[in-house]
Amino acid sequence: MERSELRMINQRLLPSRFEVETFRDHLAVASAIRDMVVRGAPAIGAAAAFGLALAACRSQADSSDELRQDVRQAADVLGVARPTAVNLSWAIQRMLAVVKEPSETVMDLRQKIVDEAQRIADEDVETNHSIAHQGVTLIDDGDVIITHCNTGALAVVDWGTALGVIRLAFDQGKRVKVLVDETRPRLQGARLTAWELQQYGIPYEIISDGAAGHFLRSGQVQKVFYGADRVAANGDVANKVGSYMLALAAHANRVPVYSVFPCSTVDLTLENGDQIPIEERNEDEVLGIEFHGEVIAPHGAHARNPAFDVTPNHLLTGLVTEKGIVYPPFKQNLARLMA
Amino acid sequence: MERSELRMINQRLLPSRFEVETFRDHLAVASAIRDMVVRGAPAIGAAAAFGLALAACRSQADSSDELRQDVRQAADVLGVARPTAVNLSWAIQRMLAVVKEPSETVMDLRQKIVDEAQRIADEDVETNHSIAHQGVTLIDDGDVIITHCNTGALAVVDWGTALGVIRLAFDQGKRVKVLVDETRPRLQGARLTAWELQQYGIPYEIISDGAAGHFLRSGQVQKVFYGADRVAANGDVANKVGSYMLALAAHANRVPVYSVFPCSTVDLTLENGDQIPIEERNEDEVLGIEFHGEVIAPHGAHARNPAFDVTPNHLLTGLVTEKGIVYPPFKQNLARLMA
Repeated sequence: MERSELRMINQRLLPSRFEVETFRDHLAVASAIRDMVVRGAPAIGAAAAFGLALAACRSQADSSDELRQDVRQAADVLGVARPTAVNLSWAIQRMLAVVKEPSETVMDLRQKIVDEAQRIADEDVETNHSIAHQGVTLIDDGDVIITHCNTGALAVVDWGTALGVIRLAFDQGKRVKVLVDETRPRLQGARLTAWELQQYGIPYEIISDGAAGHFLRSGQVQKVFYGADRVAANGDVANKVGSYMLALAAHANRVPVYSVFPCSTVDLTLENGDQIPIEERNEDEVLGIEFHGEVIAPHGAHARNPAFDVTPNHLLTGLVTEKGIVYPPFKQNLARLMA
Repeated sequence: MERSELRMINQRLLPSRFEVETFRDHLAVASAIRDMVVRGAPAIGAAAAFGLALAACRSQADSSDELRQDVRQAADVLGVARPTAVNLSWAIQRMLAVVKEPSETVMDLRQKIVDEAQRIADEDVETNHSIAHQGVTLIDDGDVIITHCNTGALAVVDWGTALGVIRLAFDQGKRVKVLVDETRPRLQGARLTAWELQQYGIPYEIISDGAAGHFLRSGQVQKVFYGADRVAANGDVANKVGSYMLALAAHANRVPVYSVFPCSTVDLTLENGDQIPIEERNEDEVLGIEFHGEVIAPHGAHARNPAFDVTPNHLLTGLVTEKGIVYPPFKQNLARLMA
């Protein structure tokens, strides 16, 4: 963010076009989150924080209290942009805590708000490097790894979560190959993860989401790594739709499954995954192929489009965070980690 | 087939266009099978039989032995068009048995060959009606059913297998709703099954293949019905890729899974599903969206594309055939049924 502008890659256009868009107010940022111009739980959190910073910069407030009111109104808008990833409300809560702080002048408060957004972004990068160093111990030379959706640099401020672990393993000289779930309906795997892996020179092949079972059952895969959008207190993980079936197939074939995320993705207020709100998005994402305007289904067809699903904790081998890897019993160990 | 021509719906164009194509020789039929202008295990079998009938009609043979040689050469071509569905070799073997029979004249033998192809087609329709009457007892009023790929009239000569069961239940007045797996990569669910269900007036919604788990885990689904391309002696079922993960998700949530097929799909020569050859098709089907010429993945990306997977028998509740429903222990009961 410079001169009261936020610049983000338009992820809807990748891999065909790389375009950086400029956002000038919190409404534009809220739309970008809703329409998935920016996506990925940590990236959404950082974008919302900068959205509030934009609101603070644009505010015409004459007093700190007026400024506080403007930023809180912006928080109400940004807070409902997407329901599942808890990083969104985590980042907003962190920003609102700063808004509450006493301050001598409007300018002073405004600067504090902007600084906090920048701090959230900077910390995210550090967090991801820590996550990668924790998780990299799980990857062996020669591993073939299935991943789902996109958890690379695009999903965060920089580096990535699950894909960041794989990237560090590769940088350390471990020979890895990634089977990339294309991740219908929005194809974040085929579009974004493939694009990132290509940049990093990491060997990969794209597969249909339904094909993962075949590769797992025929013994061609050693590990499964994916991200998380919200983790309940018992270690149940909400992640991109299709993650649950992938975890089932891995578990049935004794292939370890790791969910990788920053601690800001954990929601200790929810006892288990059934309490996580699952966003249902527009049916057009399923009826057609996003970004190409092509319709597959017959005229008049309808679709259901849950964007996430819940992997129950018993299917997960471990949860990888910046503070360490959590193993079962998840409820106890996650509580200890978060304390 | 009339005037030495075979007419088939071009299934690659549905649902945007309904076109009936004319095939004049066995080479064109083999290409149609390979390129999936016609698909569905029973439909492939019937098409191959008519391919041999075309070869017999087109043959310039002066003697029955020359005719036999021409038809056998055509059988070699058709027999390798696709490897997984055993109905293809089943139909060809049945045709070759007729070819072997003594005959007085070339014309007489040619007629026998044409008649046998017609008989295979006619019997398929009868078989499907019997399958539907066997399977319909499994469907209860109010059931929400997930199905995968296309097993309707398009997949057979007429009526359908798994979808035929659902169709009969609906015709009998049972209120059913179908959640249609879109079935990547070739989208037979979103394109063909949706199109058929729309014709029949059966309520349905399309879902991404990866979303089935969410609906199963949240208790919104009562049954899973899909077809089969080859069934081993122990009841392991090879079917369209993604079927295995669907069965896993259903089984994990105590939702019954039925595989529905004619006895011609059973291959008693194979002890278990691991021996079934799994066709790997061109990567372009995954890298792009079939029939639209659109590429999703970044330039230079590669994909793996197994067209089928194997559901191990322990995930299946029952196997529905024209002779009855087979329950575990499948090996014994399938052998008894086929005897």
